Amino acid sequence: MAIILGDNQYGKAESRIVRIYRDGPRHEIRDLNVTTALRGPFAPAYLTGDQSNVLPTDTQKNTAYAFAKSKGVESIEQYGLELARHFVHDVTPVEGARIEIEEFAWERAVVDGEGHDHTFLRKGQEVRTAAITVDATGEYVIGGLKDLTVLKSTGSEFAGFLEDEYTTLAETHDRVMATSLDVKWRFGTTDVAWDEVYADVKKLLVKEFATLQSLALQQTLWHMGTAVLEAHPEIVEIKLKAPNKHHFDYDLGRFGIENNGEVYWAADRAYGLIEATLVQDDAPPAHDAWKFSAGLA
Amino acid sequence: MAIILGDNQYGKAESRIVRIYRDGPRHEIRDLNVTTALRGPFAPAYLTGDQSNVLPTDTQKNTAYAFAKSKGVESIEQYGLELARHFVHDVTPVEGARIEIEEFAWERAVVDGEGHDHTFLRKGQEVRTAAITVDATGEYVIGGLKDLTVLKSTGSEFAGFLEDEYTTLAETHDRVMATSLDVKWRFGTTDVAWDEVYADVKKLLVKEFATLQSLALQQTLWHMGTAVLEAHPEIVEIKLKAPNKHHFDYDLGRFGIENNGEVYWAADRAYGLIEATLVQDDAPPAHDAWKFSAGLA
Amino acid sequence: MAIILGDNQYGKAESRIVRIYRDGPRHEIRDLNVTTALRGPFAPAYLTGDQSNVLPTDTQKNTAYAFAKSKGVESIEQYGLELARHFVHDVTPVEGARIEIEEFAWERAVVDGEGHDHTFLRKGQEVRTAAITVDATGEYVIGGLKDLTVLKSTGSEFAGFLEDEYTTLAETHDRVMATSLDVKWRFGTTDVAWDEVYADVKKLLVKEFATLQSLALQQTLWHMGTAVLEAHPEIVEIKLKAPNKHHFDYDLGRFGIENNGEVYWAADRAYGLIEATLVQDDAPPAHDAWKFSAGLA
Amino acid sequence: MAIILGDNQYGKAESRIVRIYRDGPRHEIRDLNVTTALRGPFAPAYLTGDQSNVLPTDTQKNTAYAFAKSKGVESIEQYGLELARHFVHDVTPVEGARIEIEEFAWERAVVDGEGHDHTFLRKGQEVRTAAITVDATGEYVIGGLKDLTVLKSTGSEFAGFLEDEYTTLAETHDRVMATSLDVKWRFGTTDVAWDEVYADVKKLLVKEFATLQSLALQQTLWHMGTAVLEAHPEIVEIKLKAPNKHHFDYDLGRFGIENNGEVYWAADRAYGLIEATLVQDDAPPAHDAWKFSAGLA
Repeated sequence: MAIILGDNQYGKAESRIVRIYRDGPRHEIRDLNVTTALRGPFAPAYLTGDQSNVLPTDTQKNTAYAFAKSKGVESIEQYGLELARHFVHDVTPVEGARIEIEEFAWERAVVDGEGHDHTFLRKGQEVRTAAITVDATGEYVIGGLKDLTVLKSTGSEFAGFLEDEYTTLAETHDRVMATSLDVKWRFGTTDVAWDEVYADVKKLLVKEFATLQSLALQQTLWHMGTAVLEAHPEIVEIKLKAPNKHHFDYDLGRFGIENNGEVYWAADRAYGLIEATLVQDDAPPAHDAWKFSAGLA
Repeated sequence: MAIILGDNQYGKAESRIVRIYRDGPRHEIRDLNVTTALRGPFAPAYLTGDQSNVLPTDTQKNTAYAFAKSKGVESIEQYGLELARHFVHDVTPVEGARIEIEEFAWERAVVDGEGHDHTFLRKGQEVRTAAITVDATGEYVIGGLKDLTVLKSTGSEFAGFLEDEYTTLAETHDRVMATSLDVKWRFGTTDVAWDEVYADVKKLLVKEFATLQSLALQQTLWHMGTAVLEAHPEIVEIKLKAPNKHHFDYDLGRFGIENNGEVYWAADRAYGLIEATLVQDDAPPAHDAWKFSAGLA
Repeated sequence: MAIILGDNQYGKAESRIVRIYRDGPRHEIRDLNVTTALRGPFAPAYLTGDQSNVLPTDTQKNTAYAFAKSKGVESIEQYGLELARHFVHDVTPVEGARIEIEEFAWERAVVDGEGHDHTFLRKGQEVRTAAITVDATGEYVIGGLKDLTVLKSTGSEFAGFLEDEYTTLAETHDRVMATSLDVKWRFGTTDVAWDEVYADVKKLLVKEFATLQSLALQQTLWHMGTAVLEAHPEIVEIKLKAPNKHHFDYDLGRFGIENNGEVYWAADRAYGLIEATLVQDDAPPAHDAWKFSAGLA
Repeated sequence: MAIILGDNQYGKAESRIVRIYRDGPRHEIRDLNVTTALRGPFAPAYLTGDQSNVLPTDTQKNTAYAFAKSKGVESIEQYGLELARHFVHDVTPVEGARIEIEEFAWERAVVDGEGHDHTFLRKGQEVRTAAITVDATGEYVIGGLKDLTVLKSTGSEFAGFLEDEYTTLAETHDRVMATSLDVKWRFGTTDVAWDEVYADVKKLLVKEFATLQSLALQQTLWHMGTAVLEAHPEIVEIKLKAPNKHHFDYDLGRFGIENNGEVYWAADRAYGLIEATLVQDDAPPAHDAWKFSAGLA
């Protein structure tokens, strides 16, 4: 038996970078959490501790901060592409770069009915994400969002399901449906109006969630995904992960009180978890685009 | 030496209660995390295990859910008062009740430019809080908010401070100031338009943060507090706790890049922590109003 | 109406300080999270932004790191006392100092059956805490622990409780009892073998939890507290806070399977919360000893 | 263009199951967090909302609780295999099952020097994990651990690395190295003494971390992985993910105090992140074994 070094990468995770644009009195802010990872001929670092090919993670962090100024952060997709290209093209041994970014949105503070020039409130809703890969096979951009918590108080059913000896669930034709969306979409090109597309994808996801009479969370995810792929041909694949955040009717009948879907217990755990991928039939290959640094799988 | 049973209370913490108003097609939602605690002649439960005076925490939870329907949740302050009064007035041995509530705000999903009837997005910004105490001395209501993260990208200084042999900090006349506000205000009455006052207090806090040329976070807190107390005579005391969420200039000069307050490292820990209480000179006594269940202090 | 500045303090929270003792081949480690806060004549900082009395929180942090070397960390209580005394005695305007410390325990890595000289595993069990106050009225030390999760699988009952119209709970004479202990004890002196007392208090708390046939969590807390106060006259007051981490029998009878207290659902929320203070009848006054920086109450 | 439904699965995440063995006076406890997911012909649920093939996630949860009694929890790997086989073999439309489990270890409370019969302390150190897949291609078991935080206070270097224009890091030949290990290992067989192997793998990981004079975290991971693969031929692949939890020397020279690697700032973010896979050259194919439910990648 011989032991082989398989997939490996290294980098600097979670550099918290805040970029302020302050060229005039009206400032802008972009607030990022940046992870970089490099792939390439790094086996000697593992096998013998030889670091001669290893660009320190500290240097990767310095580069991420420097690029926030020298290249700017028009969008996290554009900024991540700049970073990834630099590592692959400018740092000799590096063969592949993976950049993962979270962005936290801020909104202008409202003072006397007007948006303030240089004061912001953290919006606190969903986190926007991007994952960029550049390697010998090409350039890959994945946009996304997470922690977008949505709830509909009617318009959701669950019935006609398979039953076995462990089934005790009752059918329902009117329930609360709530989830915290984690959605990622792969672009087939890098020629994209990143911020506009992001805003529209979010809008489409919310609209489908709201307007579909849902027979199952699975069906809702399918409709969300197709709405995005149909409206945005530049998006070739979309992955949706949705915990079913259960809201259980609280039994008030025991106290002589009617509860017509008005009082719920919002449970923490366990929760349903539905996951689906939708892909255009002519999508180009993904190669390592979906290899997240957060997990080796 | 004899051992005495001092302060004690017991209750049910963190009942997650969601109340949907669905009397017409346009639903409303109030999403709460409710903690109840009772005070009174409960020494036998401690000393001998005698539970005859002890209303189970499970019963307290049932009551909180039942009241969400029977009394409704017009505001968390009103709902909390109903609950507290019930425990003290209707359950014989109970002498004091403490209700602490967190409320998570939702906004209507926007579909084709219109707010949707029954679909909501969790807003995700600050958490609204209330702490209600009812006992033999009276009724006490504390409103509040937490996790309201604000940042100003200029208009903040820090200079002229005391120095000793451990001081290395440089003075600055232009820095980012950011904090996550935790503010609580005590009412001198229960005759209050709770939701309107809440909205106005938040607006005032944000305005003072934005418009004051700040010489120190302490000064900013003082101005926030006075703005609230002056505008709202029904509020007799306000406590502000503000972590100084440090944003450090990243040194790009090492790479020949100018950084004029444009690229920051947002640090996690350590952070400054400023705490202050402002009180009207004729405020009625607080008695146990500030005794939080979350901590015995 | 006039507005008065009431209680206030400021400091640096959560300095993560790791102290290695490496004078010989066998190293020691103390891993701390240190919060300092100062009280005194700081009103000008609030009212006019005048910082001339304000020792920066950055300086407080520097001092905490410096003292980890110059004074050492024999125990967190001793180290905290050194820090607090320094601020009050050596920094002119400061009138009171509050030091709050969390300590994370490590154990030696075991290699070939022996404890390793310089490799450690984070123990991960309870967090040890200390809160030291020094001001004009004296010196106060509070020891403590939190997140000590204990469970007994029998020897716990709950019956004979008060019932009202919202009561649905069944009595039980054999249940799982589990809690995550948060206990703090005030010393009446600073002449204490801090580490030995800490170890013994933990041992006593666990022993009482284990051996008492419990009729209620309240009773268990009382026995824990009295055991500590009786064994340690240098401790004059103890506060216990215990969430009742509910373990509910899972109903397997629906599937024709007996469940004699063997399969439980460990619930997250809601949970019971029991809080009690025990004090020696001749305890000296606590003054500001219990005023935690974490909360203004 | 046509849209295709790609990878999908659904299940119940995070059922918190506590199993007590209480056949005699000396109880045992196994404390689990169980996630189940099913794969198969579920496209109709997505495309038309047809649930006739869908075993509800609620049923999956019921089954997980029932099996904790009827099959028992000798080890999480054995229990997970039972569950997965049941779903695939006994529930007609299901083609593949994925079970992911976290186990929280408890130790007996020590009372008067003896381990107590029915009282336990949560150990709080690493979390043990298992991920079981059963499908038409076979049975796959992945063991693992996470959150095992280790630190060595000497015996770690970092030098001779690649430099570019963004490199400012100094070389070091004596630093603190700390990490929180996340390791997963794939078995080539299901005929394993699961608990014994787990204990030995943990021991080997710690020993290599402790005893290797480390030139880089990469090298340490390689040595850990090879030690496990060489000692356990039943393990055919191992993946290690290690954040470099930076401990920075605090500059005490500014205060005239020497700091010879004795006082550190333990930073939160950013952190290095090193990931590697080691595999036996004759390992059988992994198929879907590494497809975690927690992420779609």
